[in-house]
Amino acid sequence: MAKAGVIGAGSWGTALALLLCGNGHEVTVWSINEEEVKELDTKREHTSKLPGVKLPEEMKFTTDLQEAVCGKDFLVLAVPSPFTRQTARKMAPYVKEGQVIVDVAKGIEESTLMTLSQQIQQEIPQADVAVLSGPSHAEEVGRGLPTTVVIGAKTEQTAEWLRNIFRNEVFRVYISPDILGMELGGSLKNVIALAAGIADGMGYGDNTKAALITRGIAEIARLGVAMGGAFESFAGLTGIGDLIVTCASVHSRNRKAGYLMGQGKTMQEAMDEVQMVVEGVYSTKAAVKLGEKYNIALPIVNQVNAVLFEGKSPREAVNELMLRDGKPEHTALTWQD
Amino acid sequence: MAKAGVIGAGSWGTALALLLCGNGHEVTVWSINEEEVKELDTKREHTSKLPGVKLPEEMKFTTDLQEAVCGKDFLVLAVPSPFTRQTARKMAPYVKEGQVIVDVAKGIEESTLMTLSQQIQQEIPQADVAVLSGPSHAEEVGRGLPTTVVIGAKTEQTAEWLRNIFRNEVFRVYISPDILGMELGGSLKNVIALAAGIADGMGYGDNTKAALITRGIAEIARLGVAMGGAFESFAGLTGIGDLIVTCASVHSRNRKAGYLMGQGKTMQEAMDEVQMVVEGVYSTKAAVKLGEKYNIALPIVNQVNAVLFEGKSPREAVNELMLRDGKPEHTALTWQD
Repeated sequence: MAKAGVIGAGSWGTALALLLCGNGHEVTVWSINEEEVKELDTKREHTSKLPGVKLPEEMKFTTDLQEAVCGKDFLVLAVPSPFTRQTARKMAPYVKEGQVIVDVAKGIEESTLMTLSQQIQQEIPQADVAVLSGPSHAEEVGRGLPTTVVIGAKTEQTAEWLRNIFRNEVFRVYISPDILGMELGGSLKNVIALAAGIADGMGYGDNTKAALITRGIAEIARLGVAMGGAFESFAGLTGIGDLIVTCASVHSRNRKAGYLMGQGKTMQEAMDEVQMVVEGVYSTKAAVKLGEKYNIALPIVNQVNAVLFEGKSPREAVNELMLRDGKPEHTALTWQD
Repeated sequence: MAKAGVIGAGSWGTALALLLCGNGHEVTVWSINEEEVKELDTKREHTSKLPGVKLPEEMKFTTDLQEAVCGKDFLVLAVPSPFTRQTARKMAPYVKEGQVIVDVAKGIEESTLMTLSQQIQQEIPQADVAVLSGPSHAEEVGRGLPTTVVIGAKTEQTAEWLRNIFRNEVFRVYISPDILGMELGGSLKNVIALAAGIADGMGYGDNTKAALITRGIAEIARLGVAMGGAFESFAGLTGIGDLIVTCASVHSRNRKAGYLMGQGKTMQEAMDEVQMVVEGVYSTKAAVKLGEKYNIALPIVNQVNAVLFEGKSPREAVNELMLRDGKPEHTALTWQD
C-alpha cells in the first residue's frame, strides 16, 4: 500500500482521495482553505462539491502543504488549472528527486501556452510528472459507477505502478506514453463542450450536437498532432471520450455555461450562474493562439471565441459553420478516379 | 433541379424526401405498402413514423416500383436493411446504366457479410451506388434542425453532384471516397449503441457510457481497417459521430432496446417493445463473424453477443469488461524509455 498526498479538495480531488482510500492506500488531502479542511475533517463529507458521498475516518486533511507532500510515495495534483503553477511552486521545496506527481486537472496557460504537466515540471524539475485523464465525472466516481481512465507517464514503469495503485473493479485504467496528446485533448475539448452547450441552449437537436462534437475533436486533433501529440489520444478516452461525457452530462460546467449562452446570456452572466471555474473559457483563448501559432484552421474554436469575446450571436456562429463550403471529410483519403 | 425516386417511406426515407422537395427537386416516394401510400397521399403526413411533419403537395407517392425508378436522375434506397437485397433485385430491371443509387440504410447481411452497397451493386451491376450516412436522426431532419452528413461515392464527381442536390443551410454535406468504412462504421456502431443502452438501463452513469462508446468505436475501427476501411471514417461523422447521436438520443431504437435489456428484459421482450427493426441485433451476429474472419479481438461486441444470444447477465458482461487486464490504450505508441 502506498502513501498518497492529494493536493486540492475539489470534487475531483476528493473523489480520487476516496478511491485511493478504498484501494487501501494512506491518503492525506490538502486544501488551502481552513474552513474546507475543518468541514471535511468533522463532517466526513464535502457538502458543496461532492454531496452525499461519505469519506472514511482514516482519510486525513490538512492545510499544511509540507505535511501533505513529505514522505508520500506519490502526489495527486488536483487544484483548478489557474492555480496549478503557483501551487506547484509552493510544493517544490518539499518534493523529493523522482517523486511522482499525477496531475488530474486540465488546462493551458494562456500567457505561455504550456500544459499543466509542463508547468509543474518547470516549477518542480525534480518531479516525475504523470497525468490522469479520461471520461470521469467526479460525482460518478464518488458514487462508485464504472469508470475508465488513462494514466500517462514518461516511463512504462511509472505508468504501470500508478495503474496498480488506482485501478479497482469499477475503475479501469489504461496507460499511455502520450502525456502531451492527453493533456491537449483534455483541455481543448472544453472549447467544444462550450459549443455543444450553446447548440443545446439554442434548442438544436442531437444531430447538431453530434456534428459539433465530431468535427470539433477533428480540429482539436489536427492542432494537437501539429503540436506533437498522438492522433490516437484524441480519438481515445482522453479526447473524444472525455468530450462525450462532458457534452452529455448534466454535471459539466462547460456544457452548462454554453447552454446558458445559447439561451441568450452573456459569458459573464453564464459564468456567474455556474459559480465554478469554466476552464473552456480560458482554453478558448489559448486554442485560438495555438491555432495561429501552428497555422491550423479551427473553425469551431474561432466561432466559440467570437461568441465568448466578440459578442457574436450564437445563431450567427452556427449558421456560419453550417454554410461553409463543403469539403471532403478527410483530406488524406483519395478517390478511385 | 433533379428528379428523385425515394424507395422506402420509413422515417428516414420520408425525411429525406421532404429535404429534397424543399431543395426544389421533383420527388416520388415508393412504398410496398398500399395503405401507407394512401395515407401519405391524403394526409400529407406520416403519422406513425414522422408525426407532426407536414409533407408538401408536390411530393408524389406510389406503390409502383417502375414508376419510382424510371426517368429519375437518382434514387434514394431507404428500406430497412433486411429488405435491401430483395428490393434492389426488384428494382434492377428498371435501373439504367450509370443511374445513381444512394443507399441511406445501414446493415451487414449475416449470411454473406456484405454491406448494403455491396448487395445493391451485386443485384444492380449497372448502378452507380453511393451512400449517405452520419449523425442524422430522421425526426430532427424532418424538423429542420442543423444536421451534418457524409456522402460516399466511387467518384468525386458523383459525390459533388449529390452534395449539391442534398445540401442546404441546415443540412451540411461532406464527401468521402471511403464507402466501405462509412458503411462498416454505420452498421457496426449499432452494436455499441446496444451496449451503451444496456449500461444506461443498469443505472450506470455517463462515465461508463462514454468509455463504452470510445472503446467500442476503437474496436470497430480495428475491425473496419482490417477489412479495408479508412480509420478516419470511424473517427469521423459516420463512425463516432453517428454512434454519439445514437447513444445520446431518445429516438434511437438500438439504444432503447439495450436500455430495456439493461433493466432485465430479454432480447425478444425488448424487440417487441421497441416495435421497429433493431439493426444492432443483426449487426452483432455479423460483427462476431467478422471478428473471427479477420482475427480481430472485439471484447465489447462479444459481451453484447453473449447478453443477446447466450443469456449472459448484463452486469456480468460489464464486470468482465471492466476487470480485463489493463493495457496501453493505443498499442502503436511507444515510451520514452
